[in-house]
Amino acid sequence: MDKINVAVAGIGRIGSVHTQNLLNHIPNAALKAICDGDVKRTAVYQNYGINSYSDFSAMLNTESLDAVIICTPTPLHFDMIEESFSHGLHVFCEKPLDKDLKNIKRLHQFSLKSKLKLQVGFNRRFDSNFSHIHLQVKEQHIGDPHILKITSRDPSPPSLQYLKSSGGMFMDMTIHDFDMARYIVGSEVSRVYATADVLIDPIFHQAEDIDTAIIVLDFDNGAKAVIDNSRQAIYGYDQRLEILGSEGMLKADNKFPHNTHFFNKSGTTSPRPYDFFMERYADSFKNEMTEFVNSIITDNEVMVSGLDAYNATALAIGAQESLLLSKPVVPKRY
Amino acid sequence: MDKINVAVAGIGRIGSVHTQNLLNHIPNAALKAICDGDVKRTAVYQNYGINSYSDFSAMLNTESLDAVIICTPTPLHFDMIEESFSHGLHVFCEKPLDKDLKNIKRLHQFSLKSKLKLQVGFNRRFDSNFSHIHLQVKEQHIGDPHILKITSRDPSPPSLQYLKSSGGMFMDMTIHDFDMARYIVGSEVSRVYATADVLIDPIFHQAEDIDTAIIVLDFDNGAKAVIDNSRQAIYGYDQRLEILGSEGMLKADNKFPHNTHFFNKSGTTSPRPYDFFMERYADSFKNEMTEFVNSIITDNEVMVSGLDAYNATALAIGAQESLLLSKPVVPKRY
Amino acid sequence: MDKINVAVAGIGRIGSVHTQNLLNHIPNAALKAICDGDVKRTAVYQNYGINSYSDFSAMLNTESLDAVIICTPTPLHFDMIEESFSHGLHVFCEKPLDKDLKNIKRLHQFSLKSKLKLQVGFNRRFDSNFSHIHLQVKEQHIGDPHILKITSRDPSPPSLQYLKSSGGMFMDMTIHDFDMARYIVGSEVSRVYATADVLIDPIFHQAEDIDTAIIVLDFDNGAKAVIDNSRQAIYGYDQRLEILGSEGMLKADNKFPHNTHFFNKSGTTSPRPYDFFMERYADSFKNEMTEFVNSIITDNEVMVSGLDAYNATALAIGAQESLLLSKPVVPKRY
Amino acid sequence: MDKINVAVAGIGRIGSVHTQNLLNHIPNAALKAICDGDVKRTAVYQNYGINSYSDFSAMLNTESLDAVIICTPTPLHFDMIEESFSHGLHVFCEKPLDKDLKNIKRLHQFSLKSKLKLQVGFNRRFDSNFSHIHLQVKEQHIGDPHILKITSRDPSPPSLQYLKSSGGMFMDMTIHDFDMARYIVGSEVSRVYATADVLIDPIFHQAEDIDTAIIVLDFDNGAKAVIDNSRQAIYGYDQRLEILGSEGMLKADNKFPHNTHFFNKSGTTSPRPYDFFMERYADSFKNEMTEFVNSIITDNEVMVSGLDAYNATALAIGAQESLLLSKPVVPKRY
Repeated sequence: MDKINVAVAGIGRIGSVHTQNLLNHIPNAALKAICDGDVKRTAVYQNYGINSYSDFSAMLNTESLDAVIICTPTPLHFDMIEESFSHGLHVFCEKPLDKDLKNIKRLHQFSLKSKLKLQVGFNRRFDSNFSHIHLQVKEQHIGDPHILKITSRDPSPPSLQYLKSSGGMFMDMTIHDFDMARYIVGSEVSRVYATADVLIDPIFHQAEDIDTAIIVLDFDNGAKAVIDNSRQAIYGYDQRLEILGSEGMLKADNKFPHNTHFFNKSGTTSPRPYDFFMERYADSFKNEMTEFVNSIITDNEVMVSGLDAYNATALAIGAQESLLLSKPVVPKRY
Repeated sequence: MDKINVAVAGIGRIGSVHTQNLLNHIPNAALKAICDGDVKRTAVYQNYGINSYSDFSAMLNTESLDAVIICTPTPLHFDMIEESFSHGLHVFCEKPLDKDLKNIKRLHQFSLKSKLKLQVGFNRRFDSNFSHIHLQVKEQHIGDPHILKITSRDPSPPSLQYLKSSGGMFMDMTIHDFDMARYIVGSEVSRVYATADVLIDPIFHQAEDIDTAIIVLDFDNGAKAVIDNSRQAIYGYDQRLEILGSEGMLKADNKFPHNTHFFNKSGTTSPRPYDFFMERYADSFKNEMTEFVNSIITDNEVMVSGLDAYNATALAIGAQESLLLSKPVVPKRY
Repeated sequence: MDKINVAVAGIGRIGSVHTQNLLNHIPNAALKAICDGDVKRTAVYQNYGINSYSDFSAMLNTESLDAVIICTPTPLHFDMIEESFSHGLHVFCEKPLDKDLKNIKRLHQFSLKSKLKLQVGFNRRFDSNFSHIHLQVKEQHIGDPHILKITSRDPSPPSLQYLKSSGGMFMDMTIHDFDMARYIVGSEVSRVYATADVLIDPIFHQAEDIDTAIIVLDFDNGAKAVIDNSRQAIYGYDQRLEILGSEGMLKADNKFPHNTHFFNKSGTTSPRPYDFFMERYADSFKNEMTEFVNSIITDNEVMVSGLDAYNATALAIGAQESLLLSKPVVPKRY
Repeated sequence: MDKINVAVAGIGRIGSVHTQNLLNHIPNAALKAICDGDVKRTAVYQNYGINSYSDFSAMLNTESLDAVIICTPTPLHFDMIEESFSHGLHVFCEKPLDKDLKNIKRLHQFSLKSKLKLQVGFNRRFDSNFSHIHLQVKEQHIGDPHILKITSRDPSPPSLQYLKSSGGMFMDMTIHDFDMARYIVGSEVSRVYATADVLIDPIFHQAEDIDTAIIVLDFDNGAKAVIDNSRQAIYGYDQRLEILGSEGMLKADNKFPHNTHFFNKSGTTSPRPYDFFMERYADSFKNEMTEFVNSIITDNEVMVSGLDAYNATALAIGAQESLLLSKPVVPKRY
């Protein structure tokens, strides 16, 4: 197979990113169809030679596809993935795969049995900073990992409406960091402790959510990790990481739109980092889709599986439980 | 006009860059045709719905075009631009426009009279570092400019064959820095002094060229500039700049493929900068073509004109003369 | 009072630092006497015009002093401070003041009642990085503090002998970080959670100690802090800190013996930070002694009081308890 | 010889620095006497057990000295050094040694013949940044040197009074950079070209001086260097250097009073560098005096000789000539 036929379901913010990338940057995928209940969204692509659908089943029944990219709201993921599998299609699905660990397990097991790929949208693994550090750790450049620190802070809080359906900070935001921690350390988590509060804006109280958190993880291999999250880093989107090992340390700093500096009486002023996840992670979105398409064409394992979705979700659930109980908890294992 | 029809002539290294950008990143340009005497080069694009030509005149006579992108060897530029103008086409041409100042002047004057655009490929003006600094200087953030320093070094020497037809380091390499100096300082050069040598490789002697140079410029507004060039910076492609003014300094550092750092017994190791001009300036190539297309659609002035080509070329010629005479010289004025 | 008479008790590693600083850098203190049971230590200073003693009481009974600097082993602190107070002397004492909170309270209360100064050796408060950040936070440059992160790592493990009498990592090493956290955040700790392990060297098992730890603090004002400690950062002594607030972030990086960088094929190599606490904190030792002497001369409050000793020690005890119980604990309050 | 007896002549700004360093930081030198026509200056040291003189000859005739430190105005240097030599004393003298190359040569030759040390106050050689780079270059870490760049800018212009007796920017300020260029490159200069102007303040016209300059040097070994000077870098005292070689590059950045950074909506603000040469080079002043004293005690060659004074002065004279003639000149050789 040289080239595969794909469709995208859900043409919202992130669905548009994948659609554009499939059109322009992934030559071995042919984008055949898109699907969204909102015709204004699909209309944008009417001159691109792509078929538009408002109904997912209709699309699967009509098009001759190899894979489908699912970017719909979380509650629709499970059924759409099952339906895609039943059509023999490989699936890329945005995170979180599902909020119920049993459902994630079922999807992963079906994927294993059927040999149909299921890749989850933990795009940050495909960022040049983090993939470089992952590889260096794996190749033992820092010896045994001891302490991982992840800083992950949004530039400004989302809307109350978004918050109410987000599943809470751990499930919506920290889930990326939980996946990153596992990806970098290369071991599973035996204990999770979380402390958190509303320090930024009372809307987080209204949403029964939190805006500031520190989460500590103990890993099976002895390593410890700490994640700190904030919904408001007014200096920009803050995505850093460092890992200390027995033989050295690796550190990923932020990325910047340019690398110029201004010197005057007040000192030196350097630019803000990229301010928005779609700019900061533009390349990682391209890379994850490229890898998904390649894993189908070469029949290799996907780089982010249902098992990864399961374990990151279990940590989000564990962190929430720790917060309620005010003590560390043992996260669910697959 | 919403969208223009364009063709590319010369599908070598840089011609391919423009071709790819026109296909993927510039929605208001339709790439209709390409032309190259080497059919292996045009064959690459046979499935893209583009017409291929081996003869430039044939292409201009057949296609219905608004503009042509000229990426052929320098000696062909002048005739191809004149021919394009005679067909009423706007022209983007790679640098150097021509090695003869009289020819450049003639092309620029025709462009002015005919209202046909002529943009020259000084792509570095469109880099996010340098355009940011240009704007900051223009907006007086550093007050009056006093000292500009440009470091411009290749990672490794080109082949002897390339060198022999390159026109010499000042015309081939420093010409970008001459344009950059004028772009940043915003004034014209009244005096140029150059010292240079062969320190890296005897092939530069064979090519009757130099590999290491320092060039000093005096500007009409009193500012001074120094450019240092090397054909071999073994730590990577080095493209930095800083400008001191009465109220502050602005500095552009290199750009890097990732922003991670490794700490061990020997200290901290940070990555090499982008190593190749096509990666380092990938965005600037996209931006310059976007701006060229926009200048046609909106009928605005191009951002790099024939006058800019004239003045940068005059400095290259002046630097060469200074080197021969071992003293500063006054460059030709338009 | 223009100048005060002082003596130093305990001329070990840290006692020598204070002795040298008093001799050379603190013009308004006259060093009159030193005391150490080991005559080899006092003999070093025989040509400096200082009286030497092997007995502390003898020194206090003989010399006419204003203040005494106590750098003896921790178990001797309490009695020596009491004896000094009974002679009406101001006291500077190295950390930890005492391992028993009741003793610390008693000393602090005596100091308050008697108007005799008692300053504790949390020298890091006097480092230019940390004092600058303390002041910026206090002056509300970052608004309300939300997340503090302290990285505090030794370059290499101490000897087994040292470890056995050190009181454990939290009391020996983290106690500085506990004081720093209170100093920077400007609030008291309501909850402490610690996770730790032996990952570096089995000698820590022999000493019944740990070598790697993460400690999380919740403050009364809502701020959260995380401290990470390691006994072995092979890239050098790592002393960093950052604090996020509602209006900005402040960050202290390491300090370096020089600021040069080497660029070659492998990338850029930057120097290791200062490798040893006596070099890294050389200025802070001078500054804390200067301030102690000034607080006596001007009769102002000391910058690190017995109350600070109490609260940092309570956090060390709390962290130890959290580790044993595997859950967060509420630290003792003064 | 374990310890030498020294005296300081001229207790102005720089003489006070050396006096303080000799008192506090150089244990193998005993400061016996100081000499200055202004009794207010010598009175400062009346309680230090040092003899004070207002007459240089009286001091030399009375005291039993090994060496003398000369910090008087330049026109007095030559006679004082000759007189010191005639008393068999080693001499440390501030820069410039003399403005007449013949006088410098005579002093150097006397020093060689008599075996009396003569060290010149090019203190920057003893800075940790520059001495590190010197050593790395010498040890061939960058292969053959190709391009040296020195940035040397004062934070703000001196007074008109100072300027009038300064000898001009090249002799007063750039002379340090000329010495640094020779020190780093390890070769002699065959050609010097200078361009300069008054861009900062008309007082430089009044003083018949310049405030902004670029100087280019060609070395015997093929290396090229560029020095850029300004009398006003409003962002602080700017003392940077970088050297490109066939195998790598070395760079010295500025030094800073602390290493903290502030992040907010406008980006990241980093501190100004040390703002004053006496803070920036505090350690280099200690180090140069330590080395001078050691060179006497161990009878080793001084690290900055009369020959170095000669060559740096010849470059200052050459740069001035180049400026007048508007062309490169060949500097005088020893």
